[in-house]
Amino acid sequence: MKFALTILGVSGAAPAHGRFPTAQVLQVQNQHFLIDCGEGAQMQMGRFAIPRNKIGHIFISHLHGDHIFGLPGLLFSFAMNGREKPLHIHSPAGLKKMTDTLLLAAGEFPYPIHFHEVNPNGHKIIFENKELTVATIPLKHRIPTCGYLFREKPFLKNIRPEKITEHGLSIPQIIEVKNGQNIVLGNGKRLPNKELVFPPKKPRSFAFVSDTLFHEAIIPIIKNTDLLYHETTFCEDNKENATRTMHSTAAQAAAIAKRANAGTLVTGHYSSRYKNLDCFLAEAKPIFPETELGEEGRVYEVEMKVERG
Amino acid sequence: MKFALTILGVSGAAPAHGRFPTAQVLQVQNQHFLIDCGEGAQMQMGRFAIPRNKIGHIFISHLHGDHIFGLPGLLFSFAMNGREKPLHIHSPAGLKKMTDTLLLAAGEFPYPIHFHEVNPNGHKIIFENKELTVATIPLKHRIPTCGYLFREKPFLKNIRPEKITEHGLSIPQIIEVKNGQNIVLGNGKRLPNKELVFPPKKPRSFAFVSDTLFHEAIIPIIKNTDLLYHETTFCEDNKENATRTMHSTAAQAAAIAKRANAGTLVTGHYSSRYKNLDCFLAEAKPIFPETELGEEGRVYEVEMKVERG
Repeated sequence: MKFALTILGVSGAAPAHGRFPTAQVLQVQNQHFLIDCGEGAQMQMGRFAIPRNKIGHIFISHLHGDHIFGLPGLLFSFAMNGREKPLHIHSPAGLKKMTDTLLLAAGEFPYPIHFHEVNPNGHKIIFENKELTVATIPLKHRIPTCGYLFREKPFLKNIRPEKITEHGLSIPQIIEVKNGQNIVLGNGKRLPNKELVFPPKKPRSFAFVSDTLFHEAIIPIIKNTDLLYHETTFCEDNKENATRTMHSTAAQAAAIAKRANAGTLVTGHYSSRYKNLDCFLAEAKPIFPETELGEEGRVYEVEMKVERG
Repeated sequence: MKFALTILGVSGAAPAHGRFPTAQVLQVQNQHFLIDCGEGAQMQMGRFAIPRNKIGHIFISHLHGDHIFGLPGLLFSFAMNGREKPLHIHSPAGLKKMTDTLLLAAGEFPYPIHFHEVNPNGHKIIFENKELTVATIPLKHRIPTCGYLFREKPFLKNIRPEKITEHGLSIPQIIEVKNGQNIVLGNGKRLPNKELVFPPKKPRSFAFVSDTLFHEAIIPIIKNTDLLYHETTFCEDNKENATRTMHSTAAQAAAIAKRANAGTLVTGHYSSRYKNLDCFLAEAKPIFPETELGEEGRVYEVEMKVERG
């Protein structure tokens, strides 16, 4: 029942100092989602033992090269490895056209690729399955860009086994309890749900905030998220560059994390100006102490917790 | 006056075991040439301290993804780093169309890119400058493919300084000597060129033999090359796979190296089937002892030698 983020690339647009461009993998329970796919993502997945063939959905934040140039190679490798199961790619408009010319070279692919165009301007659920929902987070960058909010669905409640025998509960009643309902026994006695179940597990969430200008409008959207990746292309020494190129500083990301009441903030998308990354934590931690440096190969896990009474 | 090959990627089409797809950099004196540009080439150049911005010419063997998917990222990074000097890309037909869609996203590039279409079927000089020539090597693969033969031009002869004073040589006569001519003095005495100069330096050569079926027709073209990279996608245990996918085995590459009287053979383009690379040397060395395992980041240098008598 893992909920864990692995960072594959922390570089800004021009890779430097051994860093790779943006790509991350989120594991939610037994599912692996690829978020952005910068050049070299497939090699980094190999390096960090990510089960590449388990990827069923890819979420792309925007069409700048450093977020998508790993796609053609990955799609070809899937084909070479005999993949047959469908691949879904969610992205702002235009990606299909950009990759089509390259994919043509491969002829017929042995697996279907479904492109899903997302509207980067709204906050809307664009994907859901039994375990989670994924919603867009509208961002402000030089081209249409969105982040993605991954949120587990509420867990079924776990019934206390001794309550079943104590009250002689039937199978339909047990299902009602797991779904959160109260029970009325044959003798008219009312059993409140919370007396029948263990404290429920809390659904976990991750917000991927890709390239963006400091943008307070996202705060209500990512409120209380357990794990927040927010780009930090610059430190405050380059605040003007951040504004000009529509990126954020570490201090700005920390301010967003604080006001959104995030659990943990992870930094990344570092400009090639910074060989040494010390300024990112030095600047963010006084504002938001739960800041972790985004580093390639590092895993950021959200532990399962129970809801407070 | 270096002549050295640095290997950036040794993987076959599906990257595995931490290996990167094909890309190599050849340094000839003060010039750096990029040969093929698989995904991640720009990151590997950073990792192995290749002066990326010195690349003026890129030579592409064929349009399979594992030989070109590093191009878009590299071209963008050049732009981001403020490159102004022209870039020349030599390749079989079709590359411009494949990269154009991606490059469009960048708008106006700050430097000119010149695409030069090469005919992969012939053996022809396609580039030359003061120091060297580059010629195509026709190969046999599933799509039009060629290798490239890099060859230094003959060096000017170095005159023995004591001969200048001994015979009172004039500046025009010195130039004649450097160009290899004999001298006739005013008194009619004939001075043979070889008595006036140091033993001349031998021009060096490198043959890049990219993806190909075992193809004996290249032997006269690459005859006596100092350094030969010949793909070795498989060992003999997968000879049928080699034939089917139009690749070579290590034994076949060694046979080519032997018959071409190469100086050193370097292996590469290993199939993902081989985590361990022992079979490549084990198979090639008995046939051609001067075989070196192609490894990422390793530099294969050709020492300067003098011509024999």
